[in-house]
Amino acid sequence: VEPIRSADNPKIKELRALLQDAGARRTSGLWVAEGVRLAEEAASSGLEIVRVFVSDDWEGERKEALLARLSSCDAEIVWVKRGILREISDTRQPQGIAVVLRAPMWNWAELSSRSGPVLVLDRLQDPGNVGTLARSLAAAGGAGLVLAPETADPGNPKALRASAGALFRLPVVRSESLAEARKTLACSFYTTAGRGGRAPEDLPLDEKFALVLGQEGLGVGRGWSEGVDGIVTIPMETGVESLNVATAGGVILFEAARQRRASLR
Amino acid sequence: VEPIRSADNPKIKELRALLQDAGARRTSGLWVAEGVRLAEEAASSGLEIVRVFVSDDWEGERKEALLARLSSCDAEIVWVKRGILREISDTRQPQGIAVVLRAPMWNWAELSSRSGPVLVLDRLQDPGNVGTLARSLAAAGGAGLVLAPETADPGNPKALRASAGALFRLPVVRSESLAEARKTLACSFYTTAGRGGRAPEDLPLDEKFALVLGQEGLGVGRGWSEGVDGIVTIPMETGVESLNVATAGGVILFEAARQRRASLR
Repeated sequence: VEPIRSADNPKIKELRALLQDAGARRTSGLWVAEGVRLAEEAASSGLEIVRVFVSDDWEGERKEALLARLSSCDAEIVWVKRGILREISDTRQPQGIAVVLRAPMWNWAELSSRSGPVLVLDRLQDPGNVGTLARSLAAAGGAGLVLAPETADPGNPKALRASAGALFRLPVVRSESLAEARKTLACSFYTTAGRGGRAPEDLPLDEKFALVLGQEGLGVGRGWSEGVDGIVTIPMETGVESLNVATAGGVILFEAARQRRASLR
Repeated sequence: VEPIRSADNPKIKELRALLQDAGARRTSGLWVAEGVRLAEEAASSGLEIVRVFVSDDWEGERKEALLARLSSCDAEIVWVKRGILREISDTRQPQGIAVVLRAPMWNWAELSSRSGPVLVLDRLQDPGNVGTLARSLAAAGGAGLVLAPETADPGNPKALRASAGALFRLPVVRSESLAEARKTLACSFYTTAGRGGRAPEDLPLDEKFALVLGQEGLGVGRGWSEGVDGIVTIPMETGVESLNVATAGGVILFEAARQRRASLR
């Protein structure tokens, strides 16, 4: 079979839409995993692999093993001419493979039945931060994520890449209101503030909790902070206003993991 | 004075070079702070402001105060036509102001005389990670940074932006060898590994230390890890390979800050 040469090919057009347009991902229920490492994570995730695009000039040491594994999933393998994936990807150096997969669908029961902390993301517009937080949450033994409105789409290619595959495995639910999330999760809810809250080590983070994080600059909206059980303030040097939100979330999640280890000693 | 209309203007060409080319930054000793927040940080840093580029369509509530402040620094104000800054910047939405400033020069004595942890970055090629780590270090009360070869230029616009101005204030020195850094800093040196090391809370991080971090995937080179005083492993869930390097650094730096607080209680 000849490789696809044109970006006007319908399959390439669909791939481009899935990479660039959250609406296309929502309508189709499909995500794209770009690059070798993320493709490997997709193959291991148990999610349905629909189609695999491979650039005809791609040479990588893990290529043969990965293609054999993806073929065994009954996925369609589509060869494309060199340059096509680069043209439609926003990564500087796409690695010659892009996997279209069925996005996971999660419900509240799947989230609430898991142990460990929950992250609630309010208006977190940078997909890189959403992905990095998911990666940290998976590493720190978290349960999953709740996405408030105006938060970046977890299927955004930058989010998936930053998550290193964690978004394939962690339950993610969307919610319109704190009340809904509180009713379902039945644990303590905390949010962060630059001042006036308690240091992470002074809160009982070894118990199940949900942490509401907001966009830097914007903070957490009132609808997602009023009536929470406590405010976390990471103590910082005088003159420093704030931390990167993914760093702040990581610091609190791993402080919780430290407290759980300490309680087992 | 008419605003500059052409990207071929010599001042615009110089600005573009400073934004895009580490060699041009090194030769001239100049950096560029893009956007309102970073320009404000530059104005507060005490560093010499050389020139200020302002887009003639820029309207922001902090504009007048910022321009008054920058004018009082004897900086040349250069007006440019709308679109020029967007054309040469790699940010999606440049905010209409770019400040050229004299890059700080630091020596080992300035770094070693400060209290708090030191970060040593080995082959950390993503400027965003370098900047985010500098921001976390400043917030966690760190002394400064040592850059091993092949680490991203701290004057890279992405590094400056991610640092939220921390790179204007924190001592940064370059070093060719771990031996040089150890001799000058005279503290414990730790590095990180995905397994086999000690949990952060089991190391005496309330004492002065230096933490060597390497690129994800590559890790820390042998020249920068052999003979260190200890290895830190952040305990992670089974099946998770690694953390984002900026998150890992933040977790360890804030665990050190927690230990310092605990030792004062």
